[in-house]
This record gives sequence, C-alpha cells and structure tokens, in this order.
Amino acid sequence: MMRRLRLGMVGGGQGAFIGAVHRIAARLDDRYELVAGAFSSDAERAKTSAAELHVVPDRAYAGWEEMVAAERARPDGVEVVAIVTPNHLHAAPAIAFLEAGIHVICDKPLCHTMEAAEALARAARASTARFALTHNYTGYPMVRQARAMVAAGALGRVRVVQVEYAQDWLTERLEATGQKQAEWRTDPARSGAVGCVGDIGTHAFNLAEFVTGLRVESLAAQLSTFVPGRRLDDNAHMMLRFAGGAQGMLWCSQVAPGNANALRLRVYGEAGGLEWSQEQPNTLTHAPFGEPARTLQRSGAGVLPAAAWATRIPAGHPEGYLEAFAQIYRDFADRIGGAADGAAAEQAPIPGIEEGLRGMRFMAAALGSSRLGAAWQALDPAARAAG
Amino acid sequence: MMRRLRLGMVGGGQGAFIGAVHRIAARLDDRYELVAGAFSSDAERAKTSAAELHVVPDRAYAGWEEMVAAERARPDGVEVVAIVTPNHLHAAPAIAFLEAGIHVICDKPLCHTMEAAEALARAARASTARFALTHNYTGYPMVRQARAMVAAGALGRVRVVQVEYAQDWLTERLEATGQKQAEWRTDPARSGAVGCVGDIGTHAFNLAEFVTGLRVESLAAQLSTFVPGRRLDDNAHMMLRFAGGAQGMLWCSQVAPGNANALRLRVYGEAGGLEWSQEQPNTLTHAPFGEPARTLQRSGAGVLPAAAWATRIPAGHPEGYLEAFAQIYRDFADRIGGAADGAAAEQAPIPGIEEGLRGMRFMAAALGSSRLGAAWQALDPAARAAG
Amino acid sequence: MMRRLRLGMVGGGQGAFIGAVHRIAARLDDRYELVAGAFSSDAERAKTSAAELHVVPDRAYAGWEEMVAAERARPDGVEVVAIVTPNHLHAAPAIAFLEAGIHVICDKPLCHTMEAAEALARAARASTARFALTHNYTGYPMVRQARAMVAAGALGRVRVVQVEYAQDWLTERLEATGQKQAEWRTDPARSGAVGCVGDIGTHAFNLAEFVTGLRVESLAAQLSTFVPGRRLDDNAHMMLRFAGGAQGMLWCSQVAPGNANALRLRVYGEAGGLEWSQEQPNTLTHAPFGEPARTLQRSGAGVLPAAAWATRIPAGHPEGYLEAFAQIYRDFADRIGGAADGAAAEQAPIPGIEEGLRGMRFMAAALGSSRLGAAWQALDPAARAAG
Amino acid sequence: MMRRLRLGMVGGGQGAFIGAVHRIAARLDDRYELVAGAFSSDAERAKTSAAELHVVPDRAYAGWEEMVAAERARPDGVEVVAIVTPNHLHAAPAIAFLEAGIHVICDKPLCHTMEAAEALARAARASTARFALTHNYTGYPMVRQARAMVAAGALGRVRVVQVEYAQDWLTERLEATGQKQAEWRTDPARSGAVGCVGDIGTHAFNLAEFVTGLRVESLAAQLSTFVPGRRLDDNAHMMLRFAGGAQGMLWCSQVAPGNANALRLRVYGEAGGLEWSQEQPNTLTHAPFGEPARTLQRSGAGVLPAAAWATRIPAGHPEGYLEAFAQIYRDFADRIGGAADGAAAEQAPIPGIEEGLRGMRFMAAALGSSRLGAAWQALDPAARAAG
Repeated sequence: MMRRLRLGMVGGGQGAFIGAVHRIAARLDDRYELVAGAFSSDAERAKTSAAELHVVPDRAYAGWEEMVAAERARPDGVEVVAIVTPNHLHAAPAIAFLEAGIHVICDKPLCHTMEAAEALARAARASTARFALTHNYTGYPMVRQARAMVAAGALGRVRVVQVEYAQDWLTERLEATGQKQAEWRTDPARSGAVGCVGDIGTHAFNLAEFVTGLRVESLAAQLSTFVPGRRLDDNAHMMLRFAGGAQGMLWCSQVAPGNANALRLRVYGEAGGLEWSQEQPNTLTHAPFGEPARTLQRSGAGVLPAAAWATRIPAGHPEGYLEAFAQIYRDFADRIGGAADGAAAEQAPIPGIEEGLRGMRFMAAALGSSRLGAAWQALDPAARAAG
Repeated sequence: MMRRLRLGMVGGGQGAFIGAVHRIAARLDDRYELVAGAFSSDAERAKTSAAELHVVPDRAYAGWEEMVAAERARPDGVEVVAIVTPNHLHAAPAIAFLEAGIHVICDKPLCHTMEAAEALARAARASTARFALTHNYTGYPMVRQARAMVAAGALGRVRVVQVEYAQDWLTERLEATGQKQAEWRTDPARSGAVGCVGDIGTHAFNLAEFVTGLRVESLAAQLSTFVPGRRLDDNAHMMLRFAGGAQGMLWCSQVAPGNANALRLRVYGEAGGLEWSQEQPNTLTHAPFGEPARTLQRSGAGVLPAAAWATRIPAGHPEGYLEAFAQIYRDFADRIGGAADGAAAEQAPIPGIEEGLRGMRFMAAALGSSRLGAAWQALDPAARAAG
Repeated sequence: MMRRLRLGMVGGGQGAFIGAVHRIAARLDDRYELVAGAFSSDAERAKTSAAELHVVPDRAYAGWEEMVAAERARPDGVEVVAIVTPNHLHAAPAIAFLEAGIHVICDKPLCHTMEAAEALARAARASTARFALTHNYTGYPMVRQARAMVAAGALGRVRVVQVEYAQDWLTERLEATGQKQAEWRTDPARSGAVGCVGDIGTHAFNLAEFVTGLRVESLAAQLSTFVPGRRLDDNAHMMLRFAGGAQGMLWCSQVAPGNANALRLRVYGEAGGLEWSQEQPNTLTHAPFGEPARTLQRSGAGVLPAAAWATRIPAGHPEGYLEAFAQIYRDFADRIGGAADGAAAEQAPIPGIEEGLRGMRFMAAALGSSRLGAAWQALDPAARAAG
Repeated sequence: MMRRLRLGMVGGGQGAFIGAVHRIAARLDDRYELVAGAFSSDAERAKTSAAELHVVPDRAYAGWEEMVAAERARPDGVEVVAIVTPNHLHAAPAIAFLEAGIHVICDKPLCHTMEAAEALARAARASTARFALTHNYTGYPMVRQARAMVAAGALGRVRVVQVEYAQDWLTERLEATGQKQAEWRTDPARSGAVGCVGDIGTHAFNLAEFVTGLRVESLAAQLSTFVPGRRLDDNAHMMLRFAGGAQGMLWCSQVAPGNANALRLRVYGEAGGLEWSQEQPNTLTHAPFGEPARTLQRSGAGVLPAAAWATRIPAGHPEGYLEAFAQIYRDFADRIGGAADGAAAEQAPIPGIEEGLRGMRFMAAALGSSRLGAAWQALDPAARAAG
C-alpha cells in the first residue's frame, strides 16, 4: 500500500489558476492528501478557500510563517508543501519549509531575483528535505521519450535545436482590464525583471536542455514589448549556443494570435530528427535520416521505459496537461515517500533546484544580452570567467 | 463547500483497466471519496486491492451482495456505487444497489442480454436513486460543443452522419495469449452476443445520437470476424437511417492497424459541417457552408456554455480521456449531491438508462440485421410494429 | 528523342473545366501537341476556342463526325483523341475514332448507359487502337505506391477497405442558378441514371479496386437526394463485399460542407494499414501492425519503383492534381508512342475499357440495390448466375 | 488568342534539376515555346539535350555568347531567355541578353558576388527588356493571398515574423559522392560565399518581405557548417529587425532530418496571425485575434483576387510546386506579351532585379554578421550610413 503524503499549500486560493492545477495534479494519482494551507494573504479568502478544499479550520493559516511554525510542531504535520504564489513570494516560504525539513514543490520560475534564488539554493542544499520545481512539461511521456531517445543516441550527435513557446493571450493590454493573471505577470514587482521570458521562455529553455541533455552555454537575445503601456517584455527572440557545438533558436511570445499554448521542440542530429508539440502531446515524430518519419504514440509501439513510466492509459486515449503535471507530483511522491519500484523511481527526472538556477541564469542572460543589443552572454559566470 | 460523496466500487481490482480509470475520474474533481468496494470475486485479490486503495478492511467485501447489505445498513454507507465488472455482471449488482436507494454509475454497455437490460431499466425507473452510464466520450467539452451547436441550428437540418470507431489491438488473436481484457471481451458468456459492436460500436452509436439529437430508426449491418478462432465480431459496417430523414454510416473495427482508439464523428447539414476526432479531442472543426472552416478550441473563442461547463483549464492546455471521463462523474455529483449552479448542473447531459437501452437495441438490431444478410432492422420495436 | 504525339480533342471549348485540365495534362510532360478539335457543338464557340488553343482553322471542326472523317484522311492526322464531353456524348465519338484506328483518351465515367458502354467496349476490343479512361487519381505517385505495397504483401491479406469521396459544391441547388457544371451533372439526360455515384462514386470505387487489386463482388447501397428539386442522387452510402472475403464501405457525397474534394482511401490487412487522402496527396501513411506508423513521402525514402515512375520532382516539392492527371497522359504516350524504358512503361497501370465497364456495373448495381431497399447486388452478372 | 512567346534557355541540359522545372513551368500554361538553347558547356550534351527538347539543331548553341549573337540577328529570334546555370554563371549571360533587348528569366540567387549583381542591376535598369527572378514560392496562390491580406490590414500592424526553410538532403557529405546538385551548391567557386544561406535562405528572406511588405533593416546571424569537410554553411540562425519595428527570426538548414523542403512562414500582428507551409501549400491559416482560426483554401471561400489570379483549378484539387513556378512564367508572359486583363497582369508581383539585389545584400549581411560573432548588420548601406 502506497501511503498518501500529507500536503500543504501556500497560495492558490479562490480564483487562482495554477493552484487549482497543482491540486488536481496532486490528487490524480492518489499519492497526496491536502491537509493544510495558507491559501491567501487575505484572511477571509484564506478561510473560505480552505473550507472549499476540505481543509479543517485550524489548519487554514493566515500566512506561511504561521503555517511553518504550526505544522512542524504537529506529529501529523505536512510532509510536503506546494508553493504556488506569484514569483516574488516563492523564496521566503520555500526556505522556511526546507529549513523545517519539509519537502517543497515550487512553481516556476524559481523566483524573481538572482539573490533570492541563490539563498533558496543554499537552503535546498543544506536541507534534508527535497525540492521540486514544476517544469511540468517534462512530465509528458513523449518528452521523456524524446529525452531517452537522445540519450540512447537515436539522433547521433545533436546539431540543431529549435524551441518555441507562443501564446496570444496578451496580444492586447489585458492587464489594464483587471485580469489577475495578466496583472501580476506583467508587473516587475511581482514577476521579476522579465515577463514573457520568465513566464514561458523558461519552460522552453528547460525543455530544450531536458530533452537534449545539453547545456546552453551562451545566448544572444532580443526582448520586445509590443503592447503599448506594458512594463515587461511580451516577445523574445534568441540564438543559443550549446556545449558541444550544437546551435539553437528560442522564440517565446505572448502576442502571437492563433497560438494558445504552443510549446514546440525540434531537435536535429547527425542521424535523425525529433519533433514534439505540447498541443498534440501524445505523439512524437522521429525521422531517422534516410528513412520515412515515424509517429510514435504514447503507450504505443517503440515507447521506451522512461515514457511508459509516465503514463496511465493505453495509446489512443489522450492524456494531457494535467496528467503531465501530475507526473511531477507522482515522481516526487515516489522519491520522498518510497515506491514499489524504487530503482525506476530514482531515475525519474524531477526538475529541482539546479534547473531552477539554470532558469534564473537564462533570464538574466537574456535580459543582459538584450540590453547590450543582443550581445552574446554566457549562462554560467564561472565558465565565462574561465573561458 | 462541496461535500465529497461516499463512493463504493464493484469490480476494478488489481490488473483491471477500466476500474482504475473510474477511480481517477472520481478523484479528479474531488467530489467523491472511495470508502468501500467488492473489488474482485477472488477474496485475496479483493482484500489486497482494497488495501492499495485505502479502503478499510471491514468495508472490503468479498461480493456485491454482501456489500449492498452492509452498506445500506451503515449510517455512513456509500451513496454511490461504480460498477466496473465485465458486461455480464452489470445488471444484478446495479439492480440491487438501486433497490437499496444507492445511486449507480455503470460501465457500458448496459449489460449482456436484453432481458437483463430490461430488468435493470425497471429497477432504475422504480428507484429513488439515479443511474448513470459511462458513455464517457460524451464528457468531452468539444463533443458537448458539437451537440450544442447542432441543437442551436448551426448546421441547419442534418442530412448525413458519418461515425466510426477503429482500433487495432485485436488484429491478432490476443485472447489466446491470456491477455485479460481480450479474453472477456471476445467471450460470448461475458461480453454478450456481440464483440466489437458492443465494446466500441455502442460508443459510436451513442455519440452519433448524442451530438445530432436524432434517433437512429433502423440500420443494415454486416458483422465480420476476421481473426480465425475468434468467437465474436471484430469488425462491423452499418448503414443508418435517422428519424427525420438523415442517413448515416457506422464503422467499428478492432482489426484496423494504425488505429489506436480512433473514434471520429462527422455531421453534415444544410448549412454546415462538423468534424471531431477523439484522438485530438481539444478541437472541433466547423465548416459553415460557403465560408472557410473554423477550428474551434476547447476553452477558446466561440465555445458555448455547454462546453465551457465541461472543462477545467485554458485553451492550449490539452485535456484528454481522463478529464472527459471525470466529467461524467462531476456532472453526476452535481446531479445527486447538489451544485453551486444547480440549473446548469441539471442541464448537463448525463447518459443513463435510456441511453443504455438504446445501446442494447442497437446491438440487437445490428446482430439481427447481419444474420439476415444486412436486412434493415428497426431499433424501436414499437416503431417497427406501428410502421 | 521522344516524338510529340498529334492530339485532337472532342469537347472542352471555352468555359469547360475538364477540357482545360486534359490540355494541361497533355502538355505538362511535352509528349503531345494539340493539333485538331471539335471543341463545341456551337460552331462559333468551336472556332473561337480553336483559335485560343493555337489550332489552325481548317482543323477546327464543327462536330466529331466531320473530325473523324477529315483527320483519318490526313497523313498528319491526329494519333490520339481526348473525349471530354458530358457523359452521354462519350460513346459515339469514341467508337468512331477507335474504328478509325485512332487512340482514345476518354473522361470518366465510361458513358451514360450500359448499352452504350458495351458497344464502346466491343469497339475497343476490336480496334488496333488503344483506349484509356481518365481515372486520374490512379496517376498519383502515392496511389501507385499503395497499390505496389499491397501487391507486395505489405499488408498481408486485406480485410477492410474504407473509401470515401466527399464534396460540398452541391449543398445548395446550384444547378438552378445556371452553373454549367452543376446543370449537366444533375441532368439524367446528360449524366445518366446516377448523379453523385457516377460523378465521384466511380472514382472512389475505381481507387479501391486499383489499390487493393481486389474486385468488389457485390454491394448494398442507399442513394439519397437531399436537395429539394434535384433530379439525381447527391449522396450515397454503400457496403461492399470483395472477392476473397474483404469487406468495405463506400461513401460519396456532394452535400458535405467543408469537403472540397475529399477522396480518401484506407486499407487494412492482417499485417498493416495504409491511409491516403487526395487533398494531401504527397504522403502515404503506412502502419505495420505492432510498429509506429510511417509517413512515406513522394520521392522520399521507401518509395517503390512504381511510385518513382510517376513523379517528376524531389520530395517536399508538392505535386498535385494536374501532375497526377498528366501521368495518365504520359503513361499512355509511352504505351502508344514508345518509351525509353519500354518494359517499365508497359507495366504502368493505365485504366482502360475494363475499368470503364467495372464502373458502369458499379453504378448499375448501386442504383439497383438502392431501389430494392439496399439489397445486395452482384457486380458481375456471370458471377451472380454462377453463384 | 494569346501568342506563345519564343523562349531560349541557357543551361538546363541533361541531368539538371532546375532546368527541367523551368521548362515544365514555361509549358504548363502554354504561353511559351522553347525554340533555342545553350543547354550545356559540353558540346555533345548540348546537342543531345536540344534534340530531346525538340529544339532544331541550328538553334542548339555551344555557348550563350554564340546564342545571343545568333538569336538577336534572327527575325524569329528568342523573345525571352531562361538562365538556369549555377550561380556564378548568371550575370554574364543575363547582361548580354538584356543588352540585346531580350527579356530574361533568371534563377535565384541573383549571382555569386555583389559586384556581378550590381553590374547586372545596371544592365537591367538600362535595358528595354524586362528581368524576372524565379523566387518561385511567391507564385503560390496562398502566398499571394497572405500578401494581399497583410496589405489589406487583416493583421493590423505586423509585430513578429517567423520564417524558416529546412531541408535534410545535405545531412551527410553528399557532395563527396559525386552528386552534381550537392557539388556545385557547396562549392564557393560556383555557389558564392554562402551555401545554405544563398540556396534556400534567400527564398525564406524573400518570402518574409514579399508577404509582409516590410523591409528587413538589419540582422544578426550565426552561420554553421556541421558536416565535416563541407566548405560552405549548411545551417544558419538569424534575428531580423524590420522597418517599422517588427522583429523576426529566420532559420535555414540543410541538415535537419525529416524536413524535405519545409519552407514555412508565420506572421503575427496586432489583430491576427497567418501561417503558411510550402509542403501543404493549398491552405492558409488565418487566426483573427479573439476568434477561431480559419483555414482558407486555395480557390475556396474568402480568397482574394490576387490569389484567384494565380490558380487554375477548384479547391480540393491540389496545385503544387510546378504550378507556383509556372505562375511566375505566366505573369511574366502577361507582362511582356500582353494579357487579356492588362490591369490585373500589371499588378501581378513578379520578383525582379530589386528583389535580387535584396537577396544579395541579405547574403552579405548574414555572412558579415556571422564573421563578427553575430553583430547586427544593416542590409542597406545607405541606411547604415545615415543611421
């Protein structure tokens, strides 16, 4: 019997989008039970949200500080906490919970400043507890398949990486209408120094590194703000240089009409190519050079163990965004709570603090490059110094 | 606060496919709590399954008879039961629970014989409890959208209906290898007098009637068994006549290589056409006659309230099979447990006993027609007598 | 050097659709030179059309009778004639040219009555000249590929054949507006006893037999006329039985909004499946059972000689309808005029009188079946008598 | 009657790819007659090629110099000449024919050096004859549609332009195997200072400017040579800045397995987006912001006059690469030979010397930028000086 882990949540009260997603993800595979939360800084909303979520009143906290103190003191206190606040409110609670020995699942990007990120990284490294970052697109079975195929040499040496993440919901100045999601995501105080680059560019960047197993060494970026009055970037173009010689491009945009959530990755090597698109996540196209392209199906023929691990139902029965998100939760439960197949669980690639720091460096490099007219910026300061 | 309903399950022990799907569906929107079950006729497996599912030992029953008796006597007994056994084991427990005033969610097809189906229908009509049949494809938002568009006249009068459901998993004689799913689905004793027609043909039939709002009056069918040694049909072709003059075709097959779970519906009327495919469920193509075709997206522009009701996340974030299945559970919870928006909940189209009987008549007509060399058979005996 | 064949044309004057297509097809590979024509029964239009087409005045005839007489008498008379008139005007000129020893390329269907078809067949068999019927879809490289793969056993024994041809241009009563194409195609006097079934159903039927190499033995059909006031069928549903035990369905419609010219074939056998769609003709999907599906590209990897024969440019450079049509002309030129690679040319599968007669029997069987309430009708009277 | 123009050809002898394409393009709409040629620098091959092409021996020249001299002296000399040699052999014959008052159709890119390009430009401006450059992708109806829609304001102000052209035929070192096309295209002496950027990058660049009506002001480029031993770039990544503030990316590659000839353009503006792909050229996706995306079909509903002008057959009957190429020839025939609808013909957008010079500047800027570590380079030296 797989015990359910006791889960708490910071943020995610009524009206939040990503908090609800985290809860479904936690519930889907029945490995967590939500028992406590600091759902809102608004006390009334915090209380109402808790009631809706079947959290008993005395574990509905007015703030995360109070929650850490109370929960660490309980014998049945939370074992894991999900942090689903806006970016500027990630680091402080994450550090506190980690210091209390409570595992943390944190929404991306890691935080809003590099300083906060580094403090969080120190806390994570020092803690006995584990830290997961919900780069949820890595939970898709066919993304895992792509990663496993590249690692197994199906493409030979990787040469070209094209990654893009296009949306259209900020084509007009939505933040001026009072829409909550748009408001905080375009607000430097809450989102950080970048907008689109942080909100979705980090996903694209993470996906490229996750699948190829290669590190971006440097990038040249051009950030744009097309919507008048907007305070952060809403489109970015980048050229990427990977360790080992691969070259790539990254495009992220929130002003591309017709694109709802079009994250797409293409990887080309000496021996073949791979293409995957988040809006059709159940297939992966593999083109071995000199042979007809093959459409690999989730749970279908040719699927490797790493992909089979991350799925629940047969081919042709589509899984989607929530299942991929849930995979992060499921893998994390295996990691911290024990799994039937421990060896397999240990291999499941859960994004964590290092991926979070990579994302922060990516954002910093993109912004720095753009300010210098798209000059190349290294992601790794040590590498830069050494190089 | 939306109370969680106390759920029991009959069938669905270790190794079952559809039982696990029902449980995820029940869990996804947090409206049910699994508290009891008769998970297997094998006592040991029943016990182990219960433990894995966090069901306490004294509510892990050896059989449904015992479960009805015990649960109806408890003040905290199950309010709803999910029946996920093979077809021949649907009717008896369903009748017993309905007679005990306990709501029933039953997998499709309704049962294995018309007699059993009619007994079940009588029980359902007589009971204070409600009955839902998991024609789960009706839970897809874009299927609801299609239904709402047809009802609103977007196609004008419907003329042609093309529906198909193709799979390939039975291309070879899988049932001879000991695979459990294949075994019972190709066994007349457990599946009933039809194979493919009952397993997936009923879904196609239901989908066509669900979306068009039209009733199939008669059909001409040709059932085939292509795999040597198989005891039930594995492919069927049918011509359909709908009330009001529309004509259609239905194809179902489990021997069509390259098709994992390809349920697809196309409806054409005087003023436009609609196309939907289960393997890409997040879009619906609408072609108004004389205008460019439009790709409607789940949660996107042009989506009607009936579709918006059945979704959880924004456009571009794919939902899939599990979410559609969960929608039946969510709608049923609203119906029996009360919903915030009661009026909307009451309108949610939950397949029930009438749809189950339609499916039974469809299977009977298909088999009868095929035995008579594809002679036309009416689905409604009264209509046949009157006509 | 490949000599250009001297080509004449009957029909195809100003405003005709298919005549212009035949001329482009003849010109594309530079194997024909249009030198004579009876382009219209309207003398003035015949003359003007000839001038536009660079045909000298003394070879612009007022009628085909005059044209046969004059051209057979010339030492530089036409070697081939293309007949592109409405259906009821195919047989008479075709017979006359064949009797004059002049090769004939005739548009489909063969003619408007079975009697005329049989007379034409006798003439074709008796003549030293050859006869080609423009079932142009057989000219597509990937259709040739599909045929060659089935013949080579890539699918094993064929079980299921799904063919359909859907259009929408007759969704409303276009023939009442004076549109020429709609007028004659819905007029029994010019089109014959069937409408949609003859105009496009015959293409679907021919394609199914062409690719599978199997003969339809019998069919059950339901023809409908949905548009009020129309005199011929505009939609048909059929079930097909093939020699050897395969089963199939055929749907043709000219009232299916959103379908421009959607001819589509799917073939499933013991060992795999094939899918091809005319609107995306440059690819063919091959799903070997138990392996990922492969997308074969025209001129790409895995293409067999029969397909390579029928193409001109590299993969990724789309060829279309005109190229496929031209392939019939090119193959016919090779057949009658000699080719560099004579053996390959002789194997090119050019539809001829037998395919034309098959089409006539298909139309007759479909109409007969529909009149008898979709009773099964054999296509081959001899087979029927023998069976 | 539309007179056929007398056409000559330089290059394009046996075994050439693009020469054969030009000939089909010239023939397809029956506006040209090939009457003379200097098909090869190899005298024997020149003679044999001429014979195959029905060119009489005394107009089969050993070289273009001889051809100019002879043809300009004949009363029935060529009116137009097509130049289909490798890049380094474009300028000299083009200048000579232009000086002789003979119209020129030249393959792209314009030439191999900027000096040659400028000399050719001077000749073109000075001549009474016209000059066309076969940026053949501009001949696609849906490309013309896209251009017309942007010009009509369907997207509002353009913000983002994503263009890419990916192939895979040079994934391995094909030029080392003796393959002719690969040899000259990777040879600096014949191709010029860039490889992939000139061969296909120029098409992508031209398409982006053609459709948007915007000029690229500057670019930052990174050219790569991935295949060991290759002498020119086989992949390039670029960021683009357009006049007026739009930003873009361009990717071209000949080492991207799975891509046969994947030219693709996406344009996003304040009010909507457009997407077009060369491998599926008969459709154009238009997403008006806030509405469902529409699939526009060639010859279908919503098609503007500029697109209708460039097509021959109804929707659903695919046209392809050859038809698009032929459109350049047809438009040029109208321009120089007169058209029934002169006003429409005059508006047809035929790429010419200015587009050729733009392409040369694009290549120079890309190469220059890459050599400077992807520093921004202006395309227009004057603008650069002024800026």
